[in-house]
Amino acid sequence: VALRTAEIIAVGSELLGTTRIDTNSLYITDRLSGLGIEVHVKSVVGDDRSDLAAVFRQALTRADVVVFTGGLGPTDDDLTREVVADVLGLPMTLDEAILDKIRARFARRGLTMPEVNRRQAQVPRGAIVLDNPNGTAPGLFLDHEGHAVVLLPGPPREMQPMFDGVCAGPLSERAGAERIYRTSLFITGLGESHVEQAAQPIYARWRDGSPPMATTILAAMGQVELHLSVRDADGARARRMLDDARGELLGALGEHVYSTDGRKMEEVVGDLLKARGLTIAAAESCTGGLLMSRLTDVPGSSAYVRAGVIAYDNADKQRLLDVPEALLAQHGAVSEPVAVAMAEGIRARTGADVAVGITGIAGPGGGTPQKPVGTVVISVLAPGADAYVRTFQFIGERTQVKFQSTQAALNRVRRMLADSR
Amino acid sequence: VALRTAEIIAVGSELLGTTRIDTNSLYITDRLSGLGIEVHVKSVVGDDRSDLAAVFRQALTRADVVVFTGGLGPTDDDLTREVVADVLGLPMTLDEAILDKIRARFARRGLTMPEVNRRQAQVPRGAIVLDNPNGTAPGLFLDHEGHAVVLLPGPPREMQPMFDGVCAGPLSERAGAERIYRTSLFITGLGESHVEQAAQPIYARWRDGSPPMATTILAAMGQVELHLSVRDADGARARRMLDDARGELLGALGEHVYSTDGRKMEEVVGDLLKARGLTIAAAESCTGGLLMSRLTDVPGSSAYVRAGVIAYDNADKQRLLDVPEALLAQHGAVSEPVAVAMAEGIRARTGADVAVGITGIAGPGGGTPQKPVGTVVISVLAPGADAYVRTFQFIGERTQVKFQSTQAALNRVRRMLADSR
Repeated sequence: VALRTAEIIAVGSELLGTTRIDTNSLYITDRLSGLGIEVHVKSVVGDDRSDLAAVFRQALTRADVVVFTGGLGPTDDDLTREVVADVLGLPMTLDEAILDKIRARFARRGLTMPEVNRRQAQVPRGAIVLDNPNGTAPGLFLDHEGHAVVLLPGPPREMQPMFDGVCAGPLSERAGAERIYRTSLFITGLGESHVEQAAQPIYARWRDGSPPMATTILAAMGQVELHLSVRDADGARARRMLDDARGELLGALGEHVYSTDGRKMEEVVGDLLKARGLTIAAAESCTGGLLMSRLTDVPGSSAYVRAGVIAYDNADKQRLLDVPEALLAQHGAVSEPVAVAMAEGIRARTGADVAVGITGIAGPGGGTPQKPVGTVVISVLAPGADAYVRTFQFIGERTQVKFQSTQAALNRVRRMLADSR
Repeated sequence: VALRTAEIIAVGSELLGTTRIDTNSLYITDRLSGLGIEVHVKSVVGDDRSDLAAVFRQALTRADVVVFTGGLGPTDDDLTREVVADVLGLPMTLDEAILDKIRARFARRGLTMPEVNRRQAQVPRGAIVLDNPNGTAPGLFLDHEGHAVVLLPGPPREMQPMFDGVCAGPLSERAGAERIYRTSLFITGLGESHVEQAAQPIYARWRDGSPPMATTILAAMGQVELHLSVRDADGARARRMLDDARGELLGALGEHVYSTDGRKMEEVVGDLLKARGLTIAAAESCTGGLLMSRLTDVPGSSAYVRAGVIAYDNADKQRLLDVPEALLAQHGAVSEPVAVAMAEGIRARTGADVAVGITGIAGPGGGTPQKPVGTVVISVLAPGADAYVRTFQFIGERTQVKFQSTQAALNRVRRMLADSR
């Protein structure tokens, strides 16, 4: 019988505190869904033998695949191997090949393997050992009475390549012919209810299709996400369905969709700049450098990012950006003429092709009845397009106002570059 | 018997995808630990009746307190209320007071309550209704055969004040006299193994104390965290123990500890600047504005943040920061003389008291054998201190190099301001 359902168990008391969260399960979920295997329950369990055994036993009652992360280290706290062997009733044996590898790993650094690391070479009978190129803890794969049980280390850079190997190897062989195919649309500049209104009639039709399409709308800071997925044994058909549904949604949501391939806004803007051989510069006040920081998060961005100026007070807006004093006095720092002058100033100083000016009130202080917290003015200058300036009202805390401001500014750059092509 | 153990169940199929993660459990864990209640297992379950019932049944076998978040909405997908009533064998009754409140909430917006919202007024017999000031879904508190069962909505801004009320009210009454007291130290500029070496002898003593102290070392990007906690009925004693242990650790780790009260680095630096009435400006190359963005994430930072310049290429370093062309030609853009010249340039242009210059290679491209990816030069100028400049070698991806660079620069500002006091 093909494997269809999965449960993920993250092991480690540090994941039960107030500062750490399990994120490995996102990666694992993504890879499993590529095999048509759906995650039904995820758990986090401390380094406690009886809790771990109970959660594992329950997982076996309902999941075809159980994936553990963590608890494979060499110390007494690392219980995953032992508990899995106990629950499945499998004796442990010492695997000399693993022991040799761990010894060699230490030897390469001129060290002798500590005795405690022998534990990592203990293997439940019948387990397939999964090589760990990035650490000492090997992983394990067990085929047990119709269940696949996978034990992986906790650190993502060890876990991820090992799980990729499991998915390509033993899990792939045991998965069914059906796979889950996905696509996503990322939208900004439209509220969730507007997106829902536009998407709903399209969704409804595809949901009743054959095979049915699963659809989700998720609202996040500065964007709305539409996620579509189809489970099908016929990959060409599934991809065609997703392409068609995406095409219909693009028709309904148009210019508000900034990404249909998972790229972030700063990557989309960067790719547009690169394709057209243009450079960008920004003059930021309330966003404090976040716009430039997002642009420069993208590898290769030095090809199109020129320079930026962050000018918090009026004196610096004059000195660093040549904003006329009279303009500041007449309209105030948070005003459309000043935003345009900031963009013009950074363009003149750097010679960049595209220039952004942002000025606003991020809060929590500084608001007035006329210009409350969240008032942000954005100006964009781009070749072949009219100068853009608009006043926004954003809602939320300081960092949320900052993010939404940069999102709106980048989105405007995107649309001006796309339109003027 | 006092409540001591807890389990948290987050409900919602959207939390089982690849883009969303349950973070409510961090808040709940923190509040529970204030009552001496420890979380042993956390789960995420989709909108599935049988999975939800099974996970709840198992939680009841081992946890004194079970906290649900999510699944309290008005639709058929929202199953938490029904499943809890089913498992506990409690009949549901319609609560007219809740119904009136939901109706009034809609009426305030000029709307009639949709029939579907009647579901939110269904209450298992004996439940205490928890008012939700920020949404329609009320919460529920059940006292059942020695277990406390709490049902909360998923959105954090609805969940958090409601859970605060539960902790101050019914949970507090049922918790024991013991509470968990915590403190943390945040360290930067020292590797995990160095921190461990320094902390271990101190830890060992406190761990064997009475009551014993729990200790954890966690390595994160750009910092190492030490977490200490004591469970005690005597709050004064616990706090004294934590103060003493913290004092010993501060003695051993000294200037590398940047925060002992949960403040982030950018808050610590901001508070130092504010206390001394100083302003700051930065000239950033490879960090692309991240340093300034972190500083300006702090409410009130406009009091001490002057301005910043982001200069990616050499022409802009000359034009915007007055870095001499000869210096760039002789030493290269990533060099100590250039970092100092950048800091001097931004200081001269803005008149800020403290000036930072950062230049480096964030990668993945741009590295050379002499200056590999991760090479970052940081300079800091501060009143009453010698000019600082140092070349770092950071490890990791582009965004990690960026973050570590800003962390090292802010930490240097912190130390120079603390030293020159």
